[in-house]
Amino acid sequence: MKKIILFSLLISTISNIQAQNDTDAFKIKDIYSETLTKSQAYPWLYSLTTNIGGRISGSPEAMAAVEYTRQMLDTLGLDSVWIQPCYVPHWERGDKEQARIVNSKTMGTVDLTILALGNSVGTGNNGITAEVIEVQSLDEVEALGREKIKGKIVFFNRPADITQVNTFAAYGGAVDQRVHGPAIAANFGAVGAIIRSATTSLDDIPHTGVTVDSRYNKGIKEIPSIGVSTIDADLLSRILKQEKSVNLYFRTTCAMMGDKLSYNVIGEIKGSELPNEIILVGGHLDSWDVGQGAHDDGTGVVHAMATLQMMKVMNYQPKRTIRCVLFMNEENGQQGSTAYAKASNKNNEFHLAAIESDKGGFTPRGFGCEADSDVFPERFAKFKKFEELLSPYGLDLSKGGSGADISRLKSQKGLLIGLIPDSQRYFDVHHTASDNIENVNKRELDMGVAAIFSLVYLIDQYGL
Amino acid sequence: MKKIILFSLLISTISNIQAQNDTDAFKIKDIYSETLTKSQAYPWLYSLTTNIGGRISGSPEAMAAVEYTRQMLDTLGLDSVWIQPCYVPHWERGDKEQARIVNSKTMGTVDLTILALGNSVGTGNNGITAEVIEVQSLDEVEALGREKIKGKIVFFNRPADITQVNTFAAYGGAVDQRVHGPAIAANFGAVGAIIRSATTSLDDIPHTGVTVDSRYNKGIKEIPSIGVSTIDADLLSRILKQEKSVNLYFRTTCAMMGDKLSYNVIGEIKGSELPNEIILVGGHLDSWDVGQGAHDDGTGVVHAMATLQMMKVMNYQPKRTIRCVLFMNEENGQQGSTAYAKASNKNNEFHLAAIESDKGGFTPRGFGCEADSDVFPERFAKFKKFEELLSPYGLDLSKGGSGADISRLKSQKGLLIGLIPDSQRYFDVHHTASDNIENVNKRELDMGVAAIFSLVYLIDQYGL
Repeated sequence: MKKIILFSLLISTISNIQAQNDTDAFKIKDIYSETLTKSQAYPWLYSLTTNIGGRISGSPEAMAAVEYTRQMLDTLGLDSVWIQPCYVPHWERGDKEQARIVNSKTMGTVDLTILALGNSVGTGNNGITAEVIEVQSLDEVEALGREKIKGKIVFFNRPADITQVNTFAAYGGAVDQRVHGPAIAANFGAVGAIIRSATTSLDDIPHTGVTVDSRYNKGIKEIPSIGVSTIDADLLSRILKQEKSVNLYFRTTCAMMGDKLSYNVIGEIKGSELPNEIILVGGHLDSWDVGQGAHDDGTGVVHAMATLQMMKVMNYQPKRTIRCVLFMNEENGQQGSTAYAKASNKNNEFHLAAIESDKGGFTPRGFGCEADSDVFPERFAKFKKFEELLSPYGLDLSKGGSGADISRLKSQKGLLIGLIPDSQRYFDVHHTASDNIENVNKRELDMGVAAIFSLVYLIDQYGL
Repeated sequence: MKKIILFSLLISTISNIQAQNDTDAFKIKDIYSETLTKSQAYPWLYSLTTNIGGRISGSPEAMAAVEYTRQMLDTLGLDSVWIQPCYVPHWERGDKEQARIVNSKTMGTVDLTILALGNSVGTGNNGITAEVIEVQSLDEVEALGREKIKGKIVFFNRPADITQVNTFAAYGGAVDQRVHGPAIAANFGAVGAIIRSATTSLDDIPHTGVTVDSRYNKGIKEIPSIGVSTIDADLLSRILKQEKSVNLYFRTTCAMMGDKLSYNVIGEIKGSELPNEIILVGGHLDSWDVGQGAHDDGTGVVHAMATLQMMKVMNYQPKRTIRCVLFMNEENGQQGSTAYAKASNKNNEFHLAAIESDKGGFTPRGFGCEADSDVFPERFAKFKKFEELLSPYGLDLSKGGSGADISRLKSQKGLLIGLIPDSQRYFDVHHTASDNIENVNKRELDMGVAAIFSLVYLIDQYGL
């Protein structure tokens, strides 16, 4: 008898699990169907990119983006929408940059396609002219030493490793040159730096992106720094190999202006059962000034907004609080996410999960996650169980990085999750004048919304 | 003692398996690294699309494509390169098509963006004008019957189901209207047919594609047939809802010309150990006349060619015979694959595997396969074992369709395999004037070559 009861219980549990799985599978199918037909992500992105355009922190465009997204969230009937102040650095590019190889013996004078690096100082009105020295790494600058570097323009030319299938790994292996190269070069007496664009493409498109001052030695003045297209980097390198000495002229009038007041934009649906457990979905509002900031990170912004929009469309009342956070100043300071985490910690908030989309709006391939090591094994095990329901949509759940803005929430011991879209095309447009709406596909974008909503649904239903 | 020996044997077997797995993993990593840096796929595709362009069967461009690809294969040092004759239908589009709604009460006269359907007859010089009747399916034509259909232009307007995550499923659910709609309409007395483009995108781009004569009743004359953009299909449908009767004029001067002599292009590397076991890699050389036939199927052509190129680059001597087959006339007759299969069967050839790429040059997501039911379970089980080595590259191995050209080899009882690229963008360009090189990404294309070569490598090493 006992056996029969146990057996019945087992059967009933299995049936319940099966029924629940079927319900969830059906719900996720619904989420995809509704999102692919009713998502506002693309029209919102169209406005953000074409009416507003590039929106570097502190710019009028960044403020317009704050106001536009706040208003759009206001149309959704959320429980609350607010803006959260933060002071952001404001860097301006100034005049169109110029760079040319001067009086090469074999090629004469050759213009190069460049962009000033974000947060870089300018050359001043007259530009600078100096001999170029090519290096492959930060270490090589140190090895060459002050004698070889002093008075020169250092040319960092290590390419991204295009044999990496994950292009973020390729980018990650090269971008130290842009971030820290100018500082290291300056420490050894360089007067300027020119950096090969960190991209998987060989083309004539220069990439901007931030360079930081954290490694300048005390008393060392910042030096002007530019990014050069990969084709022109190859050209410059070829000429350097042929000729003993090559002089480069470049002129940039970029400068850091005073800090400006700006805002994160936030909207949320309050949880009906566990309102104190927050599930955050986010992207960053600011972008570089060249291009329209479409994939970086307009797509992340509208992924997050449309997740809440689709909850409303589908009349989904979450158990936990679902919060859309559009961070300001990810690109050159991360003052938005710093302010957000500070306020959140002060208010003793708990983010059970935070999902960031900042790797483009391409077909989603899955989610990566990380957490404080105390809680990671347990949370990852629960997260991984969702894979069965998500893999029919081409989504893998893996360990790995999450995102720059949400990483500041790690101490709250929730799970930090990054959307992983297909990465093959991302670095063709990343930080360039080509990061435009034309390079975003509506279906691929909406698939990202559906993927995020599906994951939020599962976390909301089952916790982590 | 016996136990120890058995145990040692077991350990040694496990070590061997592990070592072999490591070797294979290393080899596949190599294939990806070399392909991403040395593949000729993109430059070949660039020539095929921009120097030659659209290459409908029987056209001078199709012949130029035969000659170009034959010459390129000739540069690779293969064991043999040849062309295989076949007679192909030759359809010509004629003058730029015109279509307009005539004297609508609410809209006046409105031009529609259309393309004649492939293999369709034309309207004659004066065009046709008739009342339009909208239907959602072939069945609805039958249900309406002769009285309602006679003398009308039948407007097939069932949209592709964009909620399908796999866009090929969405396309497959709508394309019967284009393939058989005109014949069914004609059987009930229609004078013309206009078909909503089978695409997942709402835009102003009309799609062509074949319509076939197999369902015309005996004695029924073929009727002129056109495809209309989804935006204009919606417009026409709206006007039809508002007004009792709407007249449509359209003019096409397309026509079937006489059959022409054409060719498949074939190149192979002879196997060193099992030369009679053929592993085929293929795509189709012909395309539609609008656009450049980039994704359909220029990418499949260069996937196949570059697989053999990379074998030569890497000095890979296959055990089995690896054959690249570029089929003629996939789009509107499949005479190339018919001739190939006929000759192959006559020569008692055995294709252990055939891999077709005809779903675009986007990031590969895996391979699907099918086979004669006698051999499928065993072959699929062996095939599925390769997944462990391929999944780090984002590739899933599944049951499912293979490809139109290789399906004719089923009776040889090998495994028929189709490359499955990401499908989200494919039907934006499929059979349209937008199917151009600009919509192909070099890295995504090369990832396809690497995926195919990796699979060929594993089949060549381990059989099926």
